[in-house]
Amino acid sequence: MARRVFLFGQSARDGTTLADGSETSPEVLGGKGAGLAIMSWLQLPVPPGLTISTAASAAYASGSRAVAPVLQKEILQHLAAVEDAAGAHFGDAVNPLLVSVRSGAPRSMPGMLDTVLNVGLNDATVAGLVRRTGNARFAWDSYRRFILSYADLVLGLDTQPFEDRVRTAPEVHGAPDWQQVTAEYLRIFEREAGVPFPQDAHQQLWAAISAVLESWGSRRALTYRALHGVPDRPGIAVSIQAMVFGNAGEFSGTGVGFSRNPTSGAPQPFGEYLADAQGGDVVSGVATPHPIAGDGAGSLQQALPQVYNALLASFRTLEQHFGTVQDVEFTVERGKLWLLQTRPAVLSAAASVRVAVDMAGEQLISREDALLRADARQLTGLLHPAIVANVPRTLLAKGLPASPGAATGPVTFSAEEAEARAKRGQHPVLVLSDTQPRDILGLHAAQAVLTSRGGATSHAAVIARGLGRPCVVGASELRVDAAGHRFVSRGREVRAGDVVTIDGTSGEVFLGSLPLEQPEVGPHLATLLEWADAVPGIAVRVNTETAADVARGRSLGAQGVGLFRTEYTFLAEPALAHMRALILSDGADARRAALQGMLALQRAAYTEVLRLANGMPLALRLLDLPLSSFLPQSDEDVVESARALRTTPAEIRARGQSLAESNPVFGHRGCRLAVSWPDLYATQVRGLFEAAMDVGTDGKVQILVPLVAMAAEFNRVVADIARVADEVRRQRGFAPSYQAGAIIELPRAALQAGELARSAEVLSLGTNNLTQATLGFARDDAAAFLSRYRERGLLAADPFVSIDTEGVGELVKTAIARARATRPDIEIGVCGEQAGDPASIEFFQKAGVDYVSVSPYRLPIARLATAQAALTQKG
Amino acid sequence: MARRVFLFGQSARDGTTLADGSETSPEVLGGKGAGLAIMSWLQLPVPPGLTISTAASAAYASGSRAVAPVLQKEILQHLAAVEDAAGAHFGDAVNPLLVSVRSGAPRSMPGMLDTVLNVGLNDATVAGLVRRTGNARFAWDSYRRFILSYADLVLGLDTQPFEDRVRTAPEVHGAPDWQQVTAEYLRIFEREAGVPFPQDAHQQLWAAISAVLESWGSRRALTYRALHGVPDRPGIAVSIQAMVFGNAGEFSGTGVGFSRNPTSGAPQPFGEYLADAQGGDVVSGVATPHPIAGDGAGSLQQALPQVYNALLASFRTLEQHFGTVQDVEFTVERGKLWLLQTRPAVLSAAASVRVAVDMAGEQLISREDALLRADARQLTGLLHPAIVANVPRTLLAKGLPASPGAATGPVTFSAEEAEARAKRGQHPVLVLSDTQPRDILGLHAAQAVLTSRGGATSHAAVIARGLGRPCVVGASELRVDAAGHRFVSRGREVRAGDVVTIDGTSGEVFLGSLPLEQPEVGPHLATLLEWADAVPGIAVRVNTETAADVARGRSLGAQGVGLFRTEYTFLAEPALAHMRALILSDGADARRAALQGMLALQRAAYTEVLRLANGMPLALRLLDLPLSSFLPQSDEDVVESARALRTTPAEIRARGQSLAESNPVFGHRGCRLAVSWPDLYATQVRGLFEAAMDVGTDGKVQILVPLVAMAAEFNRVVADIARVADEVRRQRGFAPSYQAGAIIELPRAALQAGELARSAEVLSLGTNNLTQATLGFARDDAAAFLSRYRERGLLAADPFVSIDTEGVGELVKTAIARARATRPDIEIGVCGEQAGDPASIEFFQKAGVDYVSVSPYRLPIARLATAQAALTQKG
Repeated sequence: MARRVFLFGQSARDGTTLADGSETSPEVLGGKGAGLAIMSWLQLPVPPGLTISTAASAAYASGSRAVAPVLQKEILQHLAAVEDAAGAHFGDAVNPLLVSVRSGAPRSMPGMLDTVLNVGLNDATVAGLVRRTGNARFAWDSYRRFILSYADLVLGLDTQPFEDRVRTAPEVHGAPDWQQVTAEYLRIFEREAGVPFPQDAHQQLWAAISAVLESWGSRRALTYRALHGVPDRPGIAVSIQAMVFGNAGEFSGTGVGFSRNPTSGAPQPFGEYLADAQGGDVVSGVATPHPIAGDGAGSLQQALPQVYNALLASFRTLEQHFGTVQDVEFTVERGKLWLLQTRPAVLSAAASVRVAVDMAGEQLISREDALLRADARQLTGLLHPAIVANVPRTLLAKGLPASPGAATGPVTFSAEEAEARAKRGQHPVLVLSDTQPRDILGLHAAQAVLTSRGGATSHAAVIARGLGRPCVVGASELRVDAAGHRFVSRGREVRAGDVVTIDGTSGEVFLGSLPLEQPEVGPHLATLLEWADAVPGIAVRVNTETAADVARGRSLGAQGVGLFRTEYTFLAEPALAHMRALILSDGADARRAALQGMLALQRAAYTEVLRLANGMPLALRLLDLPLSSFLPQSDEDVVESARALRTTPAEIRARGQSLAESNPVFGHRGCRLAVSWPDLYATQVRGLFEAAMDVGTDGKVQILVPLVAMAAEFNRVVADIARVADEVRRQRGFAPSYQAGAIIELPRAALQAGELARSAEVLSLGTNNLTQATLGFARDDAAAFLSRYRERGLLAADPFVSIDTEGVGELVKTAIARARATRPDIEIGVCGEQAGDPASIEFFQKAGVDYVSVSPYRLPIARLATAQAALTQKG
Repeated sequence: MARRVFLFGQSARDGTTLADGSETSPEVLGGKGAGLAIMSWLQLPVPPGLTISTAASAAYASGSRAVAPVLQKEILQHLAAVEDAAGAHFGDAVNPLLVSVRSGAPRSMPGMLDTVLNVGLNDATVAGLVRRTGNARFAWDSYRRFILSYADLVLGLDTQPFEDRVRTAPEVHGAPDWQQVTAEYLRIFEREAGVPFPQDAHQQLWAAISAVLESWGSRRALTYRALHGVPDRPGIAVSIQAMVFGNAGEFSGTGVGFSRNPTSGAPQPFGEYLADAQGGDVVSGVATPHPIAGDGAGSLQQALPQVYNALLASFRTLEQHFGTVQDVEFTVERGKLWLLQTRPAVLSAAASVRVAVDMAGEQLISREDALLRADARQLTGLLHPAIVANVPRTLLAKGLPASPGAATGPVTFSAEEAEARAKRGQHPVLVLSDTQPRDILGLHAAQAVLTSRGGATSHAAVIARGLGRPCVVGASELRVDAAGHRFVSRGREVRAGDVVTIDGTSGEVFLGSLPLEQPEVGPHLATLLEWADAVPGIAVRVNTETAADVARGRSLGAQGVGLFRTEYTFLAEPALAHMRALILSDGADARRAALQGMLALQRAAYTEVLRLANGMPLALRLLDLPLSSFLPQSDEDVVESARALRTTPAEIRARGQSLAESNPVFGHRGCRLAVSWPDLYATQVRGLFEAAMDVGTDGKVQILVPLVAMAAEFNRVVADIARVADEVRRQRGFAPSYQAGAIIELPRAALQAGELARSAEVLSLGTNNLTQATLGFARDDAAAFLSRYRERGLLAADPFVSIDTEGVGELVKTAIARARATRPDIEIGVCGEQAGDPASIEFFQKAGVDYVSVSPYRLPIARLATAQAALTQKG
């Protein structure tokens, strides 16, 4: 049989190390036991003890549910070594060895019995403890507590009778008389348990070990493992460690220390220390602890400078070994430092970045490790304003966190009103039940957006992310009464002009104006992202809608514009008037004039964009809106359009009706427009070519064709583009340089990627729409049921946030394989929202895409995540 | 060099046959030449002649564009045999052989020079013709016509000067003096052509042959071939045949005959005969021809009974050889029957069915051939009323023919009004811009439906086909003003109550009431379909919505109910009130009461359906409507619901708003409801189980889960179903028997079919929605651009009518392969509209589906098409 008991710790007498270093794996020793073994092996001061390996718990679960004699024998053999190292004897009345019994799973896991302290205390050994600590009150209190925890944790008795007794305990010198309470406890124990409290130290030990092993199979632990996918094997380890006492006078104490500041990441030790106290005292708040470092009175550094230096040295040793910030429990007994536990510290986002960069600088870890260490998901918090912590607040609603950051401002209920308020210098929060493409101007004007419907890739969410404005969608408790300029939620009414605060990072909406704090993006993040950019792998480009986005993308490190959406260039005045003239006019002259007007605006818009792109590659998506989006909606607009187009409002309405669609998502839009209105794309393409020639860009210009289902459609648009290019060549004397590509956003296009690649030089995977079509989940409505799906365990993640690797993922892989089979050097990118999600980026890396294109504020995350994906795949 | 000239026909002297039977292929001889060769080989009376093979036309096109000397020599050698057989000599003044020169492509093709008659006539041989026919007027008229056609067809001269001359021709005995006109023609010819009319018969012959060969490369012929995909090779054949003359007195004549009636299919010869006339006279209408058969004066049977009998014998011989009805041109010259051409007759739908059945009965063809012979697409016309032909009509609009048949009735503009009119005993025609699921009651009440938007699988189209009611959708010229109770189209206004006639077979809408004729479905179709059912292959089931559909399906030969849509059982009163109570009530009691009420209705509905199914397998689709479909819409309904549910209209509206979706197609519906409202499906399933037990059905009961995207969703519903089954088992003492299956209507479900098959015993391919999602074509809107796609050659067929074999087809094949890999005996069917399309059925046969399920009136077509697909695949 394999060895199941392993020693750790230092001899209190001569400092020799009990651990032989043969076993340091958390799989065998549990997290706690492994930490103790490693610290021992690193010659750090650890009280001696032994760990029973996880193998024992498997045997226990499948066996007799008692500590088998053969295991008892193995434990006792090793316990003798511990006794020797501690210079004390388990169960000995004169010089008793007391031990803690702790559980340790390979992964930290709630639901299990954690710790039983002071095992070995009984009517005889308590005297030895009095002698050792010089503190009778403490010794009897310890004995009393041990009886209580034994009753509770080991036997599962009701603790109420014990607790009732404490309230009526007699006092000596203003404190409870613990010796007398202990006597009462022993009586209560016997009454409740039906047997006397076990005075035999070994009997106590076996029972405590059994209780720990039993807790692995408790309902709570089983439920937790089932929910979190933690395997039942290898099981739980049990560590038995000689007790040390921080309450042994002024040269004793206890504390918790971090090897670096876990909030800021600053390379100084951080933690708290309480003199003449035991571990639980720091946590329970019976006294106020002092910082471990610093000049202040009561700090460990001041009180026990040698111990402090020893702790610092331990931190250095631990960081050198683990390469991570450590979170350490320690006790000082009579001027001697003992380390009781070490584990990786939980760091704030800022700290994790700073620590990674600093540690790489200190050559504790490599740059690659630094990159892999930072949590890309956490970066969001570093980039956006947040509500100041601990400020009292009134929650109005909770929805989906669609675009991070916080903002506060007066509520408006229409895109038009948002524009009007913005023009008056206000920063409105736009509240709608859902958003339409035509709300785009209002979305640009609003500083935050809140909707009662919609999901992570709803229109509002996509635009808001692009603009870096906070957005909460799908807040279904909101009853929005737009006509009444009010909404009701959680029994409160909010009217237009009332101020709310939106937290797009958490998805929460609060009443009134809450104080915000701006993020500090320090030099460490910049350094880390520079390292990330240097890792060969997927390129990161930016999704943009305006020239300002392009500038922002450059400053946030984009290597190109992966998607320039052109809808805004058509919806903003004065382009909108031309579009209306084009689709609502009867006469050929009026249409021609509208196209001319449009061409000038398009050329101007693209000129600005190309100047700002400054030589970066730029992929422009041809217009992808149903024509109905351009129709005048309000009565005023209809009348105005009728006047402008010299017709009647009734006629305008009739034409509008003929363009209306029951499902515009899959309607007459995208490249389908090119079949019926070829002039529209021709105008765009000509505007782009002329702009590129005017600017003289040396960057690659790509033209992306949206909503392609068939090679025939795409080829038709490609031919139209070539015709325009030829016209421009004849006018300007040289040919525009460009690549044509298709957006793969329909399942059929994914399947036909091999055909498309015959004429496409680039494919852009539009994973938002691809997800919508493949799963049949409407982007704007799915939030309503996706949250239930996640609650009920049907879905691990929102497929609009993190790519559905099985379904959509299969189509992505198929498209890439088929496209490359036709044209091995075809460029393939992703422009859906999932392109900015670290888990999805890992998938795209494996699938072999060339670039991801994300909204400007996601660039830092994507830069880090692409580097991590590349390093992970390489490793 | 291969032989390029082939003889045919009979010797006029001794009846010996010139054809050696070595070549009868249309690829070599053209259609006409092959017919002549086969008739000769069958010993039928064919005037002697020769055919120049298609190989010559290829050589001509790539060569010198003249009849090469070596070919001339080959022709002349064979012409000598023709002269010998005809007992006349080409170019001989005393006994001249005159010939026709005709073209014949392997496939009949317009755009080519067809025939030049009487080649060989000149100033000398005309006298011989006078002698032979005894008809000088005819002989000179023939010469005049030959000059004209030579000028026109061979030289391409302007014919106007010739025609002008005829109008001023001198007369003799009340008829034009053709001899004098001929003299004038010769002068006009020389003036226009610049050379005299060729008097040399051989020169005439080479020029005529060249003209025929030239016509193969004409612009018209090239365009036709390009459009219809006819290959340029092998080219055109030229047949040169001795002229015979039906105008040689009372024992002569000419006619066209069918071996059976081409309209009714009755097994009697059918055709027309004109005594003492030439072929062109029958067509040109200068005289009224008589029937060939019958007792009437002037019939061939009366006038020349022996010739008639010879013709009948020829028909029998030809049918025996070809196994198809033949369309024959014949001439009688002095009591001798000559056959000039034979080809397969074009038959009406009814005739094609009857002929196939009769011929199989006569053992002319096998039953398999009979099945393969009938055109499944044509059957539609046999099953629905049609507008009487040749009635004057005013076309109002043209849309997509969405459900065949014709109907006439007063126009209504709302589903409610249609119901009201139907209750008053009227047969309204429902006109809407588009239809919503909630219009279902109105669609049932209407006898025909017309929409200005929507495609072949739009809601209106699907329902109308299910009901067998005429339907025209996507009539985009219609400007529907529902509020104004009127529509305008082609400048005419139609108001509510005005009568229109809808032709759902052609997609046309006419003003006023047009007379209709009912179809006659004879016993022949029944016989043919019985034979079809006996062919092992894909089973045919029926898509149904009501109990009446189930009965209709049985009577039309369904082998099961492949899809029972249950939406109607929820939308019809009083179920609707319960549904509204369920989704709009706050209280648990009210909901429980609503579910109880619903259970009783569901059980009753399914009891009736299962009784009518009478042991056939039945697949019930669980409810697949967004909850918003059940919301009250009109103000009256809202007030009524508020009263019924004891709340306020404002509250009803607010709840409605919370259920509204921007894209209900992909919204909160189908199995997604099962996650949020599990009671709904549980009630359906319980109703079904209880009904099945009450009826004691011995047919397979299947439960189909709609809109499945993930195995997890499906498994959850399967578990819910099992739970209900267990409850029913405990109450009734024995377990209900059923199979659970998933509808594959989303691309992801197709990809995950292997996973789904772990718990699914049946998969139903919902190809309508699968097409919608895969191509991103909205079912209700796509018509607007799909017509343009087809016009511009981007799409061969509407993918909602005939399956897109490349895109959707790949998903179908993937789903079947993966499902069968998991569960080899899984049953797989198709329930989309394409299941009734013959071309799609062929695809489904190859893909390996077990059954197709179609709307009741498509059953005959599907039964035939599945048999054809099975026979074709086998063959």
